[in-house]
Amino acid sequence: MAGGMKLHGSPISTATMRALAALYEKDFDFEFCLVDMKSGAHKSPAFLSLNPFGQVPALEDGDLKLFESRAITAHLAHAYADKGIQLILPGREMAILSVWLEVEAHQFDPVVSKLLWELVYKTMFGIPVDPAVVEENEAKLSKVLEVYEARLGQSKYLAGDCYTLADMHHLPGLSYLMGTQVKKMFDARPRVSAWAADILARPAWAKVVALKDPPPQ
Amino acid sequence: MAGGMKLHGSPISTATMRALAALYEKDFDFEFCLVDMKSGAHKSPAFLSLNPFGQVPALEDGDLKLFESRAITAHLAHAYADKGIQLILPGREMAILSVWLEVEAHQFDPVVSKLLWELVYKTMFGIPVDPAVVEENEAKLSKVLEVYEARLGQSKYLAGDCYTLADMHHLPGLSYLMGTQVKKMFDARPRVSAWAADILARPAWAKVVALKDPPPQ
Ligand SMILES: N[C@@H](CCC(=O)N[C@@H](CS)C(=O)NCC(=O)O)C(=O)O
Ligand SMILES: N[C@@H](CCC(=O)N[C@@H](CS)C(=O)NCC(=O)O)C(=O)O
Repeated sequence: MAGGMKLHGSPISTATMRALAALYEKDFDFEFCLVDMKSGAHKSPAFLSLNPFGQVPALEDGDLKLFESRAITAHLAHAYADKGIQLILPGREMAILSVWLEVEAHQFDPVVSKLLWELVYKTMFGIPVDPAVVEENEAKLSKVLEVYEARLGQSKYLAGDCYTLADMHHLPGLSYLMGTQVKKMFDARPRVSAWAADILARPAWAKVVALKDPPPQ
Repeated sequence: MAGGMKLHGSPISTATMRALAALYEKDFDFEFCLVDMKSGAHKSPAFLSLNPFGQVPALEDGDLKLFESRAITAHLAHAYADKGIQLILPGREMAILSVWLEVEAHQFDPVVSKLLWELVYKTMFGIPVDPAVVEENEAKLSKVLEVYEARLGQSKYLAGDCYTLADMHHLPGLSYLMGTQVKKMFDARPRVSAWAADILARPAWAKVVALKDPPPQ
């Protein structure tokens, strides 16, 4: 089964990077199929048969076709629990992990997506930044990071003492934010910044970054 | 354990209604603890100790404290798989279910939340509606419903032939939308409207609605 693993996506897409992080953590042999978003390949009939929403990433695991980055990481973590490192927790601890998965998806990601659009992608595309949107979302992020700072005083990682999907899902957003003015909001919070530094330093994450910014030949 | 089940929330809150649907489907004995949001009870120290984000719902299951509605439903479905009806699927089918859980969370819910804010809550609070926001989000919802219409041609429910969490998570949004102009977007799509009618007719959902709109004495 692992032989037939293909990830379709773009190495600069945050959602693709989330799925890649799981593939590298679990040490899968997989084929990365570049979707050329500039030419609209994600809206082609071939790609729409993998994801009818026309968004990257999509995974083929043998004859199983999956999309939505967090469904892909959940599948890899649950169906291949015995392979590579564990990214989930047993029994009732899984309930706590689910809470922090939802926190990433519903508290962190919506705010960070707006900040990345303003501070990273608009610059990339030459569109002027809207300072009001930046200010509003920095204020929202600040509240989220306050909760994380308290939580990380109780356990080393968000769901407990082990690194899990709940931490991993933050990596694409964290990684981009660290190159923006928002980094100062992390620097001001010792536990959040230690957690971010720790998870950004994972060897599996370095492989995701290397795919996006290949080292000079 | 089931003896000590308490849900804290507000019966008009979509997120609370999602958690209630799971409690009723799984036929739990539970205590509903009303959080008086008008008086700001969701920002009180007592409530913040249940959910540091100060949002309803929160669940106490014995000594386990959970928040985020979809983490609550996932816990009830997984930890009590043997109780009441099954809301999850076995083995590799779980991967497909995960995809549709994420679709609800990332494609359906953000758009529907904006429409409900405009078409339901603003009216409730006497704030003028912004027609441009309504138009933009109706166009987005239309694309989502097109994907659902195709999907529901392949299987009776979103994740397969059984009702699961993936369908259930849509109920609060669907239920409110059916009282707005957006209903016509469902009426125009035979499979989506049959699916919505089917899941809105579940006895467990009737109990959630009865808590919100108590029948006259
Ligand atoms: N919730 C989806 C989001 C996927 C997504 O937004 N992908 C972006 C790139 S990061 C994309 O394909 N955008 C193109 C589009 O929406 O048309 C996931 O987590 O996979
Ligand atoms: N993602 C959360 C959303 C919870 C939420 O937004 N709850 C609303 C009521 S539906 C709330 O408590 N709002 C008050 C606030 O945000 O201050 C969940 O699914 O539980």
